[in-house]
Amino acid sequence: MAEFVRLDSSTSRHTMDKSITLPPDEIFRNLENAKRFAIDIVAKVRSFDKATKAASDKLYEISVQEEVTARLHFIKFENAYIETCLDFIKDHLVNTETKVIKATVDKEDEMTCLIKGCNFVLRNIPHEAFVYAKHADSEFRFQTTQPDIFPYLLVNIGSGVSIVKVESEDKFERIGGSSIGGGTFWGLGALLTKTKRFDELLQLASKGQHTSVDMLVKDIYGGSYGSLGLTGDLIASSFGKSATADKEFSKEDMAKSLLHMISNDIGQLACLYAKLHNLSRVYFGGFFIRGHPVTMHTITYSINFFTKGEVQALFLRHEGYLGAIGAFLKGAEEDNPNQYSWGENYAGSSGLMSVSPDMNPMQRARSGTFDMLEMDRLERQLVNLPLLQDPSSYIPDTMDLTEDALAREYWLYCFEEALDGVVKRAVASQPDMPEAAERAEKFRQKYRHKLQTLRHQPFAYGSLTVRSLLDTREHCLNEFNFPDPYSKIWHLGLIYLFIFFSSERPWLVDSYDQWLERLRGPPHKCALFFVDNSGLLSRGTEVVLASNSGPALNDVTNGELQILTERIAAMDPVIQAGLREDRLTLVQSGSSSPCLDLSRLDKVLAQVVRERQTDLVIIEGMGRAIHTNYYAMLSCESLKMAVIKNSWLADRLGGKLFSVVFKYEVPAGKPSQGSAAVTPS
Amino acid sequence: MAEFVRLDSSTSRHTMDKSITLPPDEIFRNLENAKRFAIDIVAKVRSFDKATKAASDKLYEISVQEEVTARLHFIKFENAYIETCLDFIKDHLVNTETKVIKATVDKEDEMTCLIKGCNFVLRNIPHEAFVYAKHADSEFRFQTTQPDIFPYLLVNIGSGVSIVKVESEDKFERIGGSSIGGGTFWGLGALLTKTKRFDELLQLASKGQHTSVDMLVKDIYGGSYGSLGLTGDLIASSFGKSATADKEFSKEDMAKSLLHMISNDIGQLACLYAKLHNLSRVYFGGFFIRGHPVTMHTITYSINFFTKGEVQALFLRHEGYLGAIGAFLKGAEEDNPNQYSWGENYAGSSGLMSVSPDMNPMQRARSGTFDMLEMDRLERQLVNLPLLQDPSSYIPDTMDLTEDALAREYWLYCFEEALDGVVKRAVASQPDMPEAAERAEKFRQKYRHKLQTLRHQPFAYGSLTVRSLLDTREHCLNEFNFPDPYSKIWHLGLIYLFIFFSSERPWLVDSYDQWLERLRGPPHKCALFFVDNSGLLSRGTEVVLASNSGPALNDVTNGELQILTERIAAMDPVIQAGLREDRLTLVQSGSSSPCLDLSRLDKVLAQVVRERQTDLVIIEGMGRAIHTNYYAMLSCESLKMAVIKNSWLADRLGGKLFSVVFKYEVPAGKPSQGSAAVTPS
Repeated sequence: MAEFVRLDSSTSRHTMDKSITLPPDEIFRNLENAKRFAIDIVAKVRSFDKATKAASDKLYEISVQEEVTARLHFIKFENAYIETCLDFIKDHLVNTETKVIKATVDKEDEMTCLIKGCNFVLRNIPHEAFVYAKHADSEFRFQTTQPDIFPYLLVNIGSGVSIVKVESEDKFERIGGSSIGGGTFWGLGALLTKTKRFDELLQLASKGQHTSVDMLVKDIYGGSYGSLGLTGDLIASSFGKSATADKEFSKEDMAKSLLHMISNDIGQLACLYAKLHNLSRVYFGGFFIRGHPVTMHTITYSINFFTKGEVQALFLRHEGYLGAIGAFLKGAEEDNPNQYSWGENYAGSSGLMSVSPDMNPMQRARSGTFDMLEMDRLERQLVNLPLLQDPSSYIPDTMDLTEDALAREYWLYCFEEALDGVVKRAVASQPDMPEAAERAEKFRQKYRHKLQTLRHQPFAYGSLTVRSLLDTREHCLNEFNFPDPYSKIWHLGLIYLFIFFSSERPWLVDSYDQWLERLRGPPHKCALFFVDNSGLLSRGTEVVLASNSGPALNDVTNGELQILTERIAAMDPVIQAGLREDRLTLVQSGSSSPCLDLSRLDKVLAQVVRERQTDLVIIEGMGRAIHTNYYAMLSCESLKMAVIKNSWLADRLGGKLFSVVFKYEVPAGKPSQGSAAVTPS
Repeated sequence: MAEFVRLDSSTSRHTMDKSITLPPDEIFRNLENAKRFAIDIVAKVRSFDKATKAASDKLYEISVQEEVTARLHFIKFENAYIETCLDFIKDHLVNTETKVIKATVDKEDEMTCLIKGCNFVLRNIPHEAFVYAKHADSEFRFQTTQPDIFPYLLVNIGSGVSIVKVESEDKFERIGGSSIGGGTFWGLGALLTKTKRFDELLQLASKGQHTSVDMLVKDIYGGSYGSLGLTGDLIASSFGKSATADKEFSKEDMAKSLLHMISNDIGQLACLYAKLHNLSRVYFGGFFIRGHPVTMHTITYSINFFTKGEVQALFLRHEGYLGAIGAFLKGAEEDNPNQYSWGENYAGSSGLMSVSPDMNPMQRARSGTFDMLEMDRLERQLVNLPLLQDPSSYIPDTMDLTEDALAREYWLYCFEEALDGVVKRAVASQPDMPEAAERAEKFRQKYRHKLQTLRHQPFAYGSLTVRSLLDTREHCLNEFNFPDPYSKIWHLGLIYLFIFFSSERPWLVDSYDQWLERLRGPPHKCALFFVDNSGLLSRGTEVVLASNSGPALNDVTNGELQILTERIAAMDPVIQAGLREDRLTLVQSGSSSPCLDLSRLDKVLAQVVRERQTDLVIIEGMGRAIHTNYYAMLSCESLKMAVIKNSWLADRLGGKLFSVVFKYEVPAGKPSQGSAAVTPS
């Protein structure tokens, strides 16, 4: 049951109890290990925004302007590093106008903050939750974000255990708990082994054999106890052998036995409470868990055992931040942070560390010292595309690079190879800025470091995908003020469009004939077109053009598209009529990625899709239709089109460079309305 | 998870695996502490039975005959005393004809035996289950036997914990368990305190302060955690203080903390399983519990805490015998022992020991060495009187001497004072037997010792009552072959009948007028008369005469009553007609006590009561209507009549010696059928 203190750099909080000047020794005096400090700073970030008004001649010229982007910075560090932390704050805040730092120490309700934080990360960070599998190819199996995160059970294992049922944003109840928690492992472990450090105890445990201390079923019955369904290796009595045996037990063995005892107990309690309250999602957190593979493994094992695999133990990538995030949210309630969606900034977040025994000690030290999480506020709420067949099973990404080692190797190599080019383009995108080269060099270092980290810890930000590699690059570019290095080369897309239609058929994936057949049938009511346009308007079909909200690679953004469409309308009577008759609608997708996550779309887009009874979704481009959504199942007809512009990927998919994919799909049970619907003429 | 071995003195078992000659070292080699040996012996007991055929002149003369009475002897002892045990067997079996003892060692399924044993004691031993209350006036609160013992939860805390749901005699399931059990207390306790003996660990624990080792809620939050409903004294983390504190902890404190940790954990698991399976009766057993007040207290506390008092932790007086009893029952399945009812023989059973720290060390040693349980087989099944208003709340005894210290003192004194007289009467009842005096002296010693034991341990055989004191005396008399010392003075009852009707009104309890009023109404359909007869036959009411099955004090037995009735019929035409027209029925009550337990009546009686639509129950005499059943609520009209033949009791009830109680009761909501039913004539 750790407490935390929120250090608040702003003096404008209503909830302030008292302002103190750092370092406030007397404040920290009573704080114990594993405390968290949430430092929330509304920083001024230099940002480049597209001009929304039409710039007559230079359509793609960018106007540079400063705006405030809401970003949350959470910095996690051990108490021992409080001085370092204060230095860090000084160093990092020295550039702001604030000369005197005042810190507010609020003692917030721990559990409320924990739950608020948990709700926040579950809702806002894709791949936040994961299943841990020690012996699997990929240690972490990340879960897709569910449309509805409630209800769930949170088992928080601090010194003791709190078992909390969370039913909605504001409704939670501590339905159970146990005094046998992390403090018991630590306390009993210290007494038994004379080892005082928690981490060392875990190290001991990872090397021990519990069977020399525990009494197993087979120690009593000579084998399994068949009639009760108990296997021989089951622990009948923790520490049962030390009751009568007159011998010394090794520290390692005792620590291991203790770990099993506590993990199994918590596991059973969690399962019983989950069953009693009919909850299938059970998250584990607290310092007993916090990224420790050995405790995640024993808890996972226990849950599997007690539920016979029916319930999975879920862990959270940002479990250590929950309290701090919750404290921030609580303090910022007047701003209603839940009305926005938030996204993890891969550039500013340190990601999940592996703390497996063979981990790099440097990484381990770093992880123990500082951990960072940055969250960018998106100025809109992101929701599921209403046309997803099954939102709960939708996975945007076609390839999971955490699981596919070969693909991972290729793409990491690929992005590293491409880095020089990106740096060049970044500099070229800001010809009037003399310090751009210097910034671009910093970007290179940062992104290269990210790629290196991901090579060793592909799980650092959840499932590693081409999308996340692209997003990370965008985030890093943004961090060094290169929001749109492709602004000068947007026309590249047109080249691919040309390739698309000049390629020889049959294409790699070729449903073109079926599509043509379909076009002979009754027109669609409304088509949702991600990015590009086709000739549908002339058939009477309404068209919703969804384009990126922010810049990514050379993709057209909503701002650009509006200008572009107006210009085309001036030349094309079909477009003109479409706009006039409200049959052509331009909507932001909510994304700033070259890829497309249909579970995180602008709420307005979802609304339009519903209102217009959209019955066709067109997804175009490699990022949107190949790297992501290649396997996405929609509840209406869909068209996925792309030219494979990467030879490795083409090879993987059984084609050649510049292979064309034209995938026309009709949901199962819904016959294509092609010839069947055409009345004989 | 203890094993047990059944030592069987008979060679006729079908289930025998191998016969061995005692002492069989190699058999006991692998046995651990806390093993049980069930020694079941079908002994030839000299017994006096009433002649059932009419003896012309000497109506009350007894014919002495030998018959086999089925009796179970369970002897419990620690492994260390195996030699003593074998001596005991030799000493006690030397009088039988068996010269060579052969022992059969069967390894039975432990859990099946445990459950069989548990069902058996719950069904057959009144006051078997009790609630433990450390600080209450009476430490043990015994439960009345429930008509249906199923379903229940058995939490068996041996080395580990097994949680078993029992649904019927043959259906049970181990629904859960835990490795944190008695072996963990013992094993971890031994490692922490270097104390190897289980009992010593409990002693240490009873002296320790867990608060110096455990981290409490107030240690973290400075007080309670109000919003979560956690009080400040709640244990947040077991051993939490030893995680960081750099100091030595006392053995006592650590043992106490460990005990709390384990008891609370088991308590919570038990509650969750009970809730999940909708079970309200939860029994705790196993060597962790076995009569240890300190573990019963912590388990009770835990259950109260987790169920907010909704579920009570129940313990069993004969918990230590369950496996042995079950093993016997399993071995004797061809005899179907469950078709009979059984009764605890107070003379041969050692009773529940107090093991509270201030207990007599001698008693403690005895308890550790030998414990005995004897069960007599009753040749009939005992059931509830179908006319009980609420069988589950029926308590036969009017006064609970375990709770009422003054009454206990009086009655113990009373029975001790009366002992000389009983001894004299016993000798006088067998004028032709020269060794009767010697036997009577042995009886005196035995019963006096019982009374002394009960003075210190009134809870030894469940709730102490006048009935149990009387029964114990009967059992002791029987043990020394004085089955009916009152056989010569049965006519004494007639004197009291005279007093009854010659007393001046108003009597102490006087519903006589209401009764007379009732008699003016329509006649009853059928009256159940315990023991005596009245003039009801002449009104057309059928009469069921229920009399004792075996002798007790000067009460008439069924055999005697049959003879008596036939004789009266020869003189009285009403009785004669009643017998001839089957309106007068003589049935055994199933009891051999001067008192009356309406929840343990002969099955045939219950059947007759139902068939004849009995609407009146008449209970007569001090034992049946005052010591027991004074407050019994029946679903039909009832008449309780007695003369109070004891001045202390008369005083207690606010009357004088020879006060008359005439209690006519009509169940609530059922108006008396007196005047209201009388048609105007």
